[in-house]
Amino acid sequence: MNGLGDEGKTNLDGQQPVSRSIFPFSPVSPAGERIRIMLGEDDDGPSPPQLFTELDELLSVDGQEMEWKETARWIKFEEKVEKGGERWSKPHVATLSLHSLMELRTCIEKGTIMLELEASTLPQVVVRASLEELQTQRSPSMDWLSSPTTTHRNLASSSMNDISDKPEKDQLKNKFMKKLPRDAEASNVLVGEVDFLDAPFVAFVRLQQAVMLGALTEVPVPTRFLFILLGPKGKAKSYHEIGRAIATLMSDEVFHDIAYKAKDREDLLAGIDEFLDEVIVLPPGEWDPAIRIEPPKSVPSADKRKNMYGGGDSGQMNGNTPHDGGGGGGGHAVGDELKKTGRFCGGLLLDIKRKAPFFASDFYDAFHIQALSAILFIYLGTVTNAITFGGLLGDATDNMQGVLESFLGTAVSGGIFCLLAGQPLTILSSTGPVLVFERLLFNFSKDNDFDYLEFRLWIGLWSAFFCLLLVATDASYMVQYFTRFTEEGFSCLISFIFIYDAFKKMLKLADYYPINSDYRIDYVTQYDCMCMAPTILENSTVVFGDPLDAESTAVWYFNNTDLPLNATWSSLSKKDCLKYGGELVGKACKYVPDITLISFILFLGTYTTSMMLKKFKTSPFFPTWVRKLISDFAIILAILIFCGVDMLVGVNTPKLIVPTEFKPTSPNRGWFVPPFGGNPWWVYVVSALPALLVTILLFMDQQITAVIVNRKEHMLKKGAGYHLDLFWVAVLMIVCSFMGLPWYVAATVISIAHIDSLKMETETSAPGEMPKFLGVREQRVTGMCVFILTGLSVFMSPILKFIPMPVLYGVFLYMGVASLNGVQFMDRLQLLLMPAKHQPDLVYLRHVPLRKVHLFTFIQILCLALLWVLKSTVAAIIFPVMILALVAVRKTMDYMFSQHELSFLDDVIPEKDKKKKEDAKQKKKMRSIDSDIEDSDFPYTENVPSIKIPMDMMEQEPFLGDKASDSDPEMSPLNVPQIRIEMDPDDNGYRWKSRGSESSL
Amino acid sequence: MNGLGDEGKTNLDGQQPVSRSIFPFSPVSPAGERIRIMLGEDDDGPSPPQLFTELDELLSVDGQEMEWKETARWIKFEEKVEKGGERWSKPHVATLSLHSLMELRTCIEKGTIMLELEASTLPQVVVRASLEELQTQRSPSMDWLSSPTTTHRNLASSSMNDISDKPEKDQLKNKFMKKLPRDAEASNVLVGEVDFLDAPFVAFVRLQQAVMLGALTEVPVPTRFLFILLGPKGKAKSYHEIGRAIATLMSDEVFHDIAYKAKDREDLLAGIDEFLDEVIVLPPGEWDPAIRIEPPKSVPSADKRKNMYGGGDSGQMNGNTPHDGGGGGGGHAVGDELKKTGRFCGGLLLDIKRKAPFFASDFYDAFHIQALSAILFIYLGTVTNAITFGGLLGDATDNMQGVLESFLGTAVSGGIFCLLAGQPLTILSSTGPVLVFERLLFNFSKDNDFDYLEFRLWIGLWSAFFCLLLVATDASYMVQYFTRFTEEGFSCLISFIFIYDAFKKMLKLADYYPINSDYRIDYVTQYDCMCMAPTILENSTVVFGDPLDAESTAVWYFNNTDLPLNATWSSLSKKDCLKYGGELVGKACKYVPDITLISFILFLGTYTTSMMLKKFKTSPFFPTWVRKLISDFAIILAILIFCGVDMLVGVNTPKLIVPTEFKPTSPNRGWFVPPFGGNPWWVYVVSALPALLVTILLFMDQQITAVIVNRKEHMLKKGAGYHLDLFWVAVLMIVCSFMGLPWYVAATVISIAHIDSLKMETETSAPGEMPKFLGVREQRVTGMCVFILTGLSVFMSPILKFIPMPVLYGVFLYMGVASLNGVQFMDRLQLLLMPAKHQPDLVYLRHVPLRKVHLFTFIQILCLALLWVLKSTVAAIIFPVMILALVAVRKTMDYMFSQHELSFLDDVIPEKDKKKKEDAKQKKKMRSIDSDIEDSDFPYTENVPSIKIPMDMMEQEPFLGDKASDSDPEMSPLNVPQIRIEMDPDDNGYRWKSRGSESSL
Repeated sequence: MNGLGDEGKTNLDGQQPVSRSIFPFSPVSPAGERIRIMLGEDDDGPSPPQLFTELDELLSVDGQEMEWKETARWIKFEEKVEKGGERWSKPHVATLSLHSLMELRTCIEKGTIMLELEASTLPQVVVRASLEELQTQRSPSMDWLSSPTTTHRNLASSSMNDISDKPEKDQLKNKFMKKLPRDAEASNVLVGEVDFLDAPFVAFVRLQQAVMLGALTEVPVPTRFLFILLGPKGKAKSYHEIGRAIATLMSDEVFHDIAYKAKDREDLLAGIDEFLDEVIVLPPGEWDPAIRIEPPKSVPSADKRKNMYGGGDSGQMNGNTPHDGGGGGGGHAVGDELKKTGRFCGGLLLDIKRKAPFFASDFYDAFHIQALSAILFIYLGTVTNAITFGGLLGDATDNMQGVLESFLGTAVSGGIFCLLAGQPLTILSSTGPVLVFERLLFNFSKDNDFDYLEFRLWIGLWSAFFCLLLVATDASYMVQYFTRFTEEGFSCLISFIFIYDAFKKMLKLADYYPINSDYRIDYVTQYDCMCMAPTILENSTVVFGDPLDAESTAVWYFNNTDLPLNATWSSLSKKDCLKYGGELVGKACKYVPDITLISFILFLGTYTTSMMLKKFKTSPFFPTWVRKLISDFAIILAILIFCGVDMLVGVNTPKLIVPTEFKPTSPNRGWFVPPFGGNPWWVYVVSALPALLVTILLFMDQQITAVIVNRKEHMLKKGAGYHLDLFWVAVLMIVCSFMGLPWYVAATVISIAHIDSLKMETETSAPGEMPKFLGVREQRVTGMCVFILTGLSVFMSPILKFIPMPVLYGVFLYMGVASLNGVQFMDRLQLLLMPAKHQPDLVYLRHVPLRKVHLFTFIQILCLALLWVLKSTVAAIIFPVMILALVAVRKTMDYMFSQHELSFLDDVIPEKDKKKKEDAKQKKKMRSIDSDIEDSDFPYTENVPSIKIPMDMMEQEPFLGDKASDSDPEMSPLNVPQIRIEMDPDDNGYRWKSRGSESSL
Repeated sequence: MNGLGDEGKTNLDGQQPVSRSIFPFSPVSPAGERIRIMLGEDDDGPSPPQLFTELDELLSVDGQEMEWKETARWIKFEEKVEKGGERWSKPHVATLSLHSLMELRTCIEKGTIMLELEASTLPQVVVRASLEELQTQRSPSMDWLSSPTTTHRNLASSSMNDISDKPEKDQLKNKFMKKLPRDAEASNVLVGEVDFLDAPFVAFVRLQQAVMLGALTEVPVPTRFLFILLGPKGKAKSYHEIGRAIATLMSDEVFHDIAYKAKDREDLLAGIDEFLDEVIVLPPGEWDPAIRIEPPKSVPSADKRKNMYGGGDSGQMNGNTPHDGGGGGGGHAVGDELKKTGRFCGGLLLDIKRKAPFFASDFYDAFHIQALSAILFIYLGTVTNAITFGGLLGDATDNMQGVLESFLGTAVSGGIFCLLAGQPLTILSSTGPVLVFERLLFNFSKDNDFDYLEFRLWIGLWSAFFCLLLVATDASYMVQYFTRFTEEGFSCLISFIFIYDAFKKMLKLADYYPINSDYRIDYVTQYDCMCMAPTILENSTVVFGDPLDAESTAVWYFNNTDLPLNATWSSLSKKDCLKYGGELVGKACKYVPDITLISFILFLGTYTTSMMLKKFKTSPFFPTWVRKLISDFAIILAILIFCGVDMLVGVNTPKLIVPTEFKPTSPNRGWFVPPFGGNPWWVYVVSALPALLVTILLFMDQQITAVIVNRKEHMLKKGAGYHLDLFWVAVLMIVCSFMGLPWYVAATVISIAHIDSLKMETETSAPGEMPKFLGVREQRVTGMCVFILTGLSVFMSPILKFIPMPVLYGVFLYMGVASLNGVQFMDRLQLLLMPAKHQPDLVYLRHVPLRKVHLFTFIQILCLALLWVLKSTVAAIIFPVMILALVAVRKTMDYMFSQHELSFLDDVIPEKDKKKKEDAKQKKKMRSIDSDIEDSDFPYTENVPSIKIPMDMMEQEPFLGDKASDSDPEMSPLNVPQIRIEMDPDDNGYRWKSRGSESSL
């Protein structure tokens, strides 16, 4: 053990390995060397099987008899038997005392070690161990074997013989088995106090063959290791702690390997010393050992420890931070797919070449039950989207495109895309930006008396043409210039529009159904609305002074108007009354009761219920699958609940308009939009201009989503196809334009949901340990099924018409708010309101001064405010171009922030090296303090989760900003080439400086 | 250091202290003995001052010059300078590596130690230390002093001379100073790499006099300790870690004392060894050292460590639990006050004798700014209560008691009680049970044609008489029999009634203002409500077939009825129409638009807003005082907001009825209730029966609250006065009964809020450390002021009439739900829905089998269901007796559960020892496994907080069940006499038992 007080003693062997100590002549203990040899030996052999460790203690039951009782178990983390509670504790980090570890070391040093014992029953093991002890007579106190053999026999034979060597029923029934891989082996730690021993008896046994020791182990797993510690009365607590220590060691990845490969006692001791050297120490005055520490989200890999011998310091504790996505720069997974080929259609051809070999497997890879649940989940999401966007589109375009078009378009476009595109995991959908554009386009058409659908067709054709041009020229490589700043600016703006629109819709509705706030119950007799015949007629000579005679006037007019037979003015409905030129008179006429208020109840209710149900996943109630189900179906459930409320109250709220037949929503259009005739010829040419805007819009929307889907962290194996994707988007655009269907691009939220529902994880994982992510089930079947089902849903119209519009507005509010979740910009906005001491431990706050963070936020706010103002003026239609302008703003920021700061707040723009070098000088100054101490040589560059993060956060639903939460460590800005600081060795100008500025931190 | 691999070596000195090792002949290092001597020496001397430790490192700035930079600081927990972020990290537990601790030990072993150095400037210290090093020449590598003196001088003199010995401006401005006590001293840890050294130079210096070393320390605090570690280049990281290690040691309570008292190097080494022995170890494979661990809610006291030498094991790690309030049995703080004296009025006289000496201090103790904020907070709570209960009382009693009576009664009763009662911290208020009783009483009076107020007066007089009887006989001692089971049954029932009533009121309101769900906008012309003259008259001969002639009929009736002049039937309001015998005809007559829906919006809005604002305290936004303010004023704010919404919408919602003058709410009563004349004589006698019920009700309500207020955890110093309290409640009852005012008893929620707002805490506390609770500002002034203000609020009537009733119902829903918070029964109800692995780590779950916990919950549900059913039938009036029956049920449960289980789920009933002994046998069996291993010898029996509890939870608002969260450790059931298990020493009947039942845990 290095540095543990034994320097200057082991230096005798003359060898001089690299010392980890700061003292020049202090030697390195041979532990490191031993371990390197041990672990390096048979690297090509199979790695040792996983171990299940069980701590059994001799305990009195019913106050009299002693029995072996399981008191704790380990796979990776400790689980304790809570005897009183008759249950297993939650898995927790095993906090040990250094004392018990040192005692364990003494046990291994002095006890019996048998490393290739051949035995098949527990009695054999015990007898062999006892004999070994007797033979060596290592300790003067080891005379316990001469004590009455009856008691010993009692322990070794009589009761042990009760155990059969076949797994018992209870063992086989144990559900815990599924946490273990098939080839797992057991290590049994047996400790207890007995009264026939004067000194402790210790044995560490590795069996040559793993043997089933009957019901000794909780699970039917063969035992490989046995650690036996029996000692005199009075020290049960110490034995227990030593048992926990060895069990914890056995569940340690490195010691586990050493235990399998050890050849002698010294190997084991070296293993303990290595463990001690890596141990993390909490000061006794700052921590309560009784607190059970929940397993962290991730632990540093043991490989780093295994490869560490021979140099390098152990990591600095507490406070070093690699970049993680918690806020640091994520960075795109820009691979081969985005390289510029320079050839015509070069990228497209490469995409096809890359994807073609996988086409068959894209179908048979889908055979898994998980695909089924993914289909159902994504289908519901898609249908909800189709309904809500359809409803809003109908609203925006006066039903020229409605719900039916939305369903049909979604089904056709999505289906074809999933079948043929480069990345079939991407789900096409109507998206916010397209909706905004359609609204602007329709209003523009109406204001200028253009034929909307024809105008739109030409824009679509031009856009498709432009997109194809982009495909042919490999333009998708430009995606690399979209940094987090641009992405978030784009997505936040869309979210804000969603939220704003939801409220605007509701206010409009309130305006349409005004509340009579002067209504008093007592004056109910005075509120009415009567249909009167027009009272003022120029050619009328009769003046009716008495209102009581109004009816007679009506009778009089009866003969002079075209009222239907048998109808009186007063019997007419509001619509008819106005139709026949009647006049509505009365206090009640301009008010509509109840509808506005119930609409607000439905709107807010749907929103809050969706939010609550979505969050239900992290609640502790019900089994995981139930919570997952409720959370996955949150929006559908909320819609159903509030449709129910609406029906219960019965007020005639405005409902979703759906056609009852399979025909266009609007009667003024067909399924084919004729390309000519509606507009003057020059419109066909001029359409190219808005088409340019649409192209930018589609390109950004599609490719930003594609980049997110193809992120390295998703571990996709079949590659991406940015160019092929865009190609199909263009083709589908032509189809949709001709059929008057909405345009479709990749939808971020739903695509990520798709990927999440297809994630594969290791099936057995130790309790407390997070399952390991293996990849995504990449195939085309789920997407296709989703869209086929969506197509069939057209026949759901009779059901859909029960959905009140306020409920859909509520869903939109939810979608707007939810997609803001996890966006770094929103986090930074919140920081503005937080006093420094309450701010979360975000990575960029550790590395970027707060005022710089705030400056970045302010610039972003300014940009968004400008975009918002633009959107609200006549310039609205050039809004996609303005989003591109964000890239330019971001470029300017290179001069206001250092690359170091931007690497945390944003991504670094890939650029000719010029700027980088310039910045390097500054960085050198900046990071001489920062990086040198903190980042260099730091062995663990994984995520640094805050201790407060609940485990379930892992399962949280993905939103636009989800990428922020688990970015790829390999892509972290730490890997941006860092400049090593070389200090002038001749300059020793140290000086003491008063730290005024720092003190006021 | 005990057990750290050096056994068998230090045994030479022949002494044989008690070994902590399990090995019989392994010795104890002299560390323990040394420390005992050191710490025991001058116990009567002043304890060493608090230390502020600062880590300074030599770092290059601007790439060239080296400077001393502060990189971390400690008072108790570590705070790191985040250079990049230009900020201090949050305080966190300093996780160290064992390696750096061992290196530190070597540093102290080999470096220069100067323990009584006289020096007044830093250069002096450095020169002295260097000379010391030169003289001893301990290390062969210590030739660095012969290296060019210029560089050394550079370090020692030239730059150090820059430092003045007066505190600099920056130091004085530092706000961090307020975290330190006045007499604090500093320890400066200086580490860095230099290029003129071949071997590290280490010095540990204690100055004879603490000296201000200029701007060396961040805060203007004199330096007592210096630790200097300078070494050759390339090991900066190791130096940094060693610096952290010594700084952590200096901030450790035990080592801190040792550092002050050490006489030589060996003392310091003994201190390090002691520290190492107590250290908590996390296995490297189970924890990521980069995670910053937040400070725990509480840490074990260092006194236990100081007193530990000479025997006893160190605590078992991970998983032991003393009882804490997290759910374990709380237990009443039943002191002297509740002993039965056996003399007439004995208790009352004792109470007066106990409280009288404090009467003067009860006034001058209030002079503190805190009292002012307490007055405002409690005033608002009291007024809200008075308004809401007044409103509900008015509703329940047909305004015989209304808001005005509520204000007046609250002011008079509360004021007198606070002035004269035994426990002036108790706040009197209308409470739920009284409200329920009044409602029942009023209905009973109405049904039986009794004069309600007179009947009530007699009941009040009888009750007061009974209460005085209880006072005279010291009956309050019975409070001890109210266990958590009874308390929670009682309070849950009240809460449920609140919640149920809130909804019932709303449904009634919806019923009163029905919504017209058939309304269609188009048919607005058909909806009206006209006042018609009665159409069917027997003596009428004219039949009007044509509805158009209805008006003429009206004219006809005009002459035959007593309609006012100038009025037609159609011009009449609804009320007048019905008054004059008219008939309301039309579809609109029976419907009222909007009111129901806006009421529901107000109701739910008030509830959710109150909830949200209350929780705002734990949000990270805004400074603490803003959050506290918003949270404290949550309900008032919610009321204001929704009064605003109500006014904005303008719908004529039902409002709170308040008299505009100072006169009884009902015109049918005066300010004095005459005792005779209203009811037959026998009612005066019979009143004794309901009075008995009221007595039980008042007694329980009053005393349960009093017990909670007087709990030991509040550390009240002036004693309680149960009998005196009850005496005044009785007297006030007589007053209130005669004046027709509501009856008042102690209100739990508001009384606890009162105490919380008067809590005193230590003012300086280390960052990350919780302030220590010192006690409560016990005085009579705050309460009196609150009630005087309440009295003056009667003149607020013009404002109060703007409050809509649905808003008040919302507040009541909130109060009902909020008071269920933290009640153990509710926690257990939630457990029913949670799978075992998601259940929180509650203490009783560790010690009581889940099925027993569920059984307990089921019994409670059954009891409450029975009580609920009773309450809803005619038997309702005996409902207080039924609550007493809970005590009987609880007694029966002694036979279904062991005392051990009940001690966790409930409190143990104080009882003749019989039952206890009976149970002991069973307990012996039960706990032989449980307690023996876990609880005995465990040194830390403080709270075991879960690691997930956020720090702000401490500040959480108090509710009925608050007592559960921090119960008194001294009262914890662990102190219930435990039976030591004696095992038959002759029986060695160990046997291997298959653990079927456990495996399936």
